[in-house]
Amino acid sequence: VASCEERWYEQTTDHFGWAAPAGGALASTFQQRYFLCAKAWKASPLPPAQRPVLFYFGNEDNVELYLNHTGLMWDNADKLGAALLFVEHRYYGESLVHAAPGRNGTLPGNPACLNYCTTDQALADFASVLMDLEVVLDGTKRGTTPVIGFGGSYGGMMAAWFRIKYPHLVDGVIAASAPIWSFFGLTPSYDPSGFYQVVTRDASKGGGAAPACAANAKEAFRRIDKAGQTQQGRGLLASSFRTCAPLSDAGAAAALSDWAQSPWATLAMGNFPYPSTYLMHGLSLLPAWPVRAACEPLRDAALATGDDGPLFEAMREAVAVYFNNTGQAACFFNQPAQDAVAEANDVAITDTCVGDWDWQWCTEMHQPFTQGTDKDMFYPLEAYNQSAAFAGCAAQWGVTPRPLWAATAWWGSDLSRASNIVFSNGLLDPWSAGGVTRNISVSRDVTAIILPNGAHHLDLMFSNDLDPPDAVWARQYELARIQKWIGAKRGVAAM
Amino acid sequence: VASCEERWYEQTTDHFGWAAPAGGALASTFQQRYFLCAKAWKASPLPPAQRPVLFYFGNEDNVELYLNHTGLMWDNADKLGAALLFVEHRYYGESLVHAAPGRNGTLPGNPACLNYCTTDQALADFASVLMDLEVVLDGTKRGTTPVIGFGGSYGGMMAAWFRIKYPHLVDGVIAASAPIWSFFGLTPSYDPSGFYQVVTRDASKGGGAAPACAANAKEAFRRIDKAGQTQQGRGLLASSFRTCAPLSDAGAAAALSDWAQSPWATLAMGNFPYPSTYLMHGLSLLPAWPVRAACEPLRDAALATGDDGPLFEAMREAVAVYFNNTGQAACFFNQPAQDAVAEANDVAITDTCVGDWDWQWCTEMHQPFTQGTDKDMFYPLEAYNQSAAFAGCAAQWGVTPRPLWAATAWWGSDLSRASNIVFSNGLLDPWSAGGVTRNISVSRDVTAIILPNGAHHLDLMFSNDLDPPDAVWARQYELARIQKWIGAKRGVAAM
Repeated sequence: VASCEERWYEQTTDHFGWAAPAGGALASTFQQRYFLCAKAWKASPLPPAQRPVLFYFGNEDNVELYLNHTGLMWDNADKLGAALLFVEHRYYGESLVHAAPGRNGTLPGNPACLNYCTTDQALADFASVLMDLEVVLDGTKRGTTPVIGFGGSYGGMMAAWFRIKYPHLVDGVIAASAPIWSFFGLTPSYDPSGFYQVVTRDASKGGGAAPACAANAKEAFRRIDKAGQTQQGRGLLASSFRTCAPLSDAGAAAALSDWAQSPWATLAMGNFPYPSTYLMHGLSLLPAWPVRAACEPLRDAALATGDDGPLFEAMREAVAVYFNNTGQAACFFNQPAQDAVAEANDVAITDTCVGDWDWQWCTEMHQPFTQGTDKDMFYPLEAYNQSAAFAGCAAQWGVTPRPLWAATAWWGSDLSRASNIVFSNGLLDPWSAGGVTRNISVSRDVTAIILPNGAHHLDLMFSNDLDPPDAVWARQYELARIQKWIGAKRGVAAM
Repeated sequence: VASCEERWYEQTTDHFGWAAPAGGALASTFQQRYFLCAKAWKASPLPPAQRPVLFYFGNEDNVELYLNHTGLMWDNADKLGAALLFVEHRYYGESLVHAAPGRNGTLPGNPACLNYCTTDQALADFASVLMDLEVVLDGTKRGTTPVIGFGGSYGGMMAAWFRIKYPHLVDGVIAASAPIWSFFGLTPSYDPSGFYQVVTRDASKGGGAAPACAANAKEAFRRIDKAGQTQQGRGLLASSFRTCAPLSDAGAAAALSDWAQSPWATLAMGNFPYPSTYLMHGLSLLPAWPVRAACEPLRDAALATGDDGPLFEAMREAVAVYFNNTGQAACFFNQPAQDAVAEANDVAITDTCVGDWDWQWCTEMHQPFTQGTDKDMFYPLEAYNQSAAFAGCAAQWGVTPRPLWAATAWWGSDLSRASNIVFSNGLLDPWSAGGVTRNISVSRDVTAIILPNGAHHLDLMFSNDLDPPDAVWARQYELARIQKWIGAKRGVAAM
C-alpha cells in the first residue's frame, strides 16, 4: 500500500453530452482520483508493454477502502509482476464533481447536481482512463498490455458490464459478488425476496449459526410490533433495548424495529471467518463470523415462547454486535445529537456534489427488495412497491427510476455473447441471490464459482489463515483464468 | 410500402441523465416515428413469436428515404415471412425533440438544443424500442422472436455498433457500407486521404470511367485556382461555368472551385448501374453510373494540355450531371436568391431542434478528411487540421469534438469479441476506405464481403436487372447469414 501513488485524471463530466453540464452549474471536467501501485511492475523482467495491469473498478465509496481490502490484487501483483490501478468512482471519495468556476454555492441545491452520477458515466470514465493507459503508466501500450479487471459488489457489476461493453479495453474480469441479475426485465424474473432469504440462512443452522436464531429473531420483530402499540409495551421496549430516549408512539417503536432489523444484511455480507473492518468502511471492526456472533444471544429456542423482556434483550445483544462493536455505546437507537452532527456535515458541503447510492437506486440501479415473507426472519411483510418507490424517489431526488434500463443496457439475462468473466458468489452473501451462479459458456470463458462458506466477495480479500478451503480454491481458479487471459493477450499481440 | 403503418413511440429524450433536458428547455420525452410493415409477417404460417422482425436503424434523414430504398429488407420480408420495422433517428425526419411545454420559442437558440442528438442516445432509442417489441408488434416475444438488423452508411455503423453493444436485442446485422474504421484512435491509424482516393478511382479507368477523367479534373481545379487570381481569369471562369453572378474576387473563385469539387464524392457514393434518386434524397434523379457520365465531358486527354476555356467548360458539363440533373438550371454556382430562401426556412423553425450531421461530426462522429494529395483528383491540398476543425465546431455549434470517443465506445480496431455481423463494402464507394473489408472471425460469424462494382450500399437497394453479379451474390450471402441467425435463435429459444 505504501508503494502506491495517489494521482489525478482530468475526466469529462458528461461523456454523453456536449452542452455545459447542469446548465453551466457544473464544471465540464473534474479530477478523478486513482492510485497507481507499480512496485512489482517495475521489478518485472518482462518488456514494459508486456507487463500486466490489474484494474479495480471503484465502487460507491472512497477508493482507499478497496485499495486496502482487495488482497487478491495485491497477492497477484507479485506473482504476475503487475501494476495495480485503483480508480475511484465519480462523485465518491475525493473524485467529486465541482461547481463551475464562479458558481460556488449553487450546489448541491441544483437539482441536476447528481445528474452525472450514473453507472454509464462511470463506465465511460474507466474507458477513458484505459484509452490513456500509456499516459497513466509510461511503458504500457494500449492493445498490447494485458489488462485484467477486478470488482466486488457494485464494482463487480461494473467489472462484468465493462467487459461486455468495452472488451477492447480489458482482457478479462473477476466479478466478485456482482448481483447483475437483481433487476427488472430479466427472464426468468428476479425474485426480490431472495436477498433476505439468504440473510436468514446465515442466521440459521445452514449458515453455521445457532439453529433457533432466525425463528427467535422473527418472533422478536413480531413482538416489537405488538409491544409498540401500547405505552406499557413501548416502556418495555425502551428499557429492554436501552434506547437513548423514550419511544413516544407506535411510529417510534416501528422505527426501533427497522433499526433492529437493519444490521442483519450487513452482518451477512460481512460474515467472514475473521474480524474485518470492511463492512464498517474501515472505521470499526466486526468480529469473526458476525452473524454467528449476533445469533449467540438468540441461541435458546425457548426465547420464542417466553416473555417479551428476555427476547428483546437477546435481540439487543444480538444487534449490539453491529451497533456496539466498539463497546463504547452508552445507549442505543435514538440519538438526536449525533443525527444533528451528520446533518450539519451535509449542509457544509456547498460546492461539490457527493454521490449517494440512494440516488443511483432511484435512477439506474433500481434493485427491488422484499422482506418479511414466510421464507425470511423479518417482520412485517414489506413487499417491493413500485408506486411507493417512485414516489419516494420523486420526493427525495426529484427523479423517476427507469427499472428496465439495467436490463436494456447490460444485456439482461442473455450473457451468451460475453467472454472472459469469472462470476464468484458466496452462499453466505445475500447478494448471491442476484448473482450469476452457473456457468454461461466454457468456450467463451464465462464461468461461475461458488464459495459455500463465503460472504460478500471473500475471494477478493487478503488471504487469511482462517479462510475456508473454498476461498483458497477460488483464488487459485481466478489466478488460472487471469494467467490464461494474459497469455492469450500476449499471443495475439505477438502476431 | 403501402402495407406500412406510420406509428409513434414515446421516447426518453435523455437516456443517460435524469435532470430536465437542457435545463428544462426540452421536453423529457419525444415522439419517435417508426414504420411497421407487417403484411408478410401476418401471412406467415409460423407461430407469431417465431416470425422474424427485420429492423432498420434509421440514419440522419427522414426514415421514409430508407423505407423506400432498402429493397433488401422488402425482398427478404416475403422470403422469411418477416415484419419490417424502420425506426427513425432522433432529431431527423419527423422524430423531432420539442421544447418543453410553455417553452416554445426558446429553441433552437438554446445552445443545448442539439445536446441529445448523439449516436449513444440513438442506439439507446433503438434498444428501448426493442425492449418493448411485444408492445410494438403484438405476438412477438422479446428473447424468442428473431430480430435481424439492417443499416447502410451511418445506419450501417449503428447496426454494427448496436450488435456489439446490445447483442441481447438483435441476433445479427447487415452493416452495409459502414465506415466504422474512419475515426481516430485506431490501430493501425485511419488514413484520412483514403476517401478521396476512392472517389478518384471512380473517375478513372478502374472505375469504368474515361481514363483521362481524374487527371483532367485535377488539372481543371489547378487552373481554376490560378485563373481566380486575376480579373481576366475570373471573367473566363464566370463565362465558362455560366455562373449566376460575376466572381468578385479570388475568394469567390476559390468557392467556385469548392463547388466544382464537391459533387464528385456524392456521385461516387451514388455510382449505381441504374438511375437512382437515393443520393438526391429522393428529390431528383442521378443517371446510371453517374461518375462515368460526369467523366464523359472530361474524356479527351488533350484537355489537360489545352486552353483553360475548353477545360473549364468540360468541368461545367461534368458537374452538371449533379447540379443540373433536372435539366432546368439556367445558370450555376452563386444563386443568392435560393440561399436566402434556405436561410429563411431555417429561421422559421422555433420550437424544435433539427438534427444536423455537421453537429454530429463536431461531437462524436469526428471523421477526418484530407483531399488534394498526390493520390487524388482534387486541388489544392486540404489536409485535416484538428485545430481548425475544433475552431470551426466551436464557432458553429459551441462544442469541441471528442475524436477518441468513437474508438472508446465502439471498440476501435478490435472486433475480436463481436459476432453475427456482415460488413459489406463496394469498391466504388468512397466510404469503403473506412470500412471493414476483411473477415474478422468465421467462427463468430463476423465477415466482410466486397462488391467490386458496388457503390454506397448497393446491396441494400432493390434488385435491378442492371445489377452487377457481385450485388446479386452479396444479397444471397446476406440472406444465408440471416437464415442462419434466425435458425440459431429458434434453436436457442426452443431449448
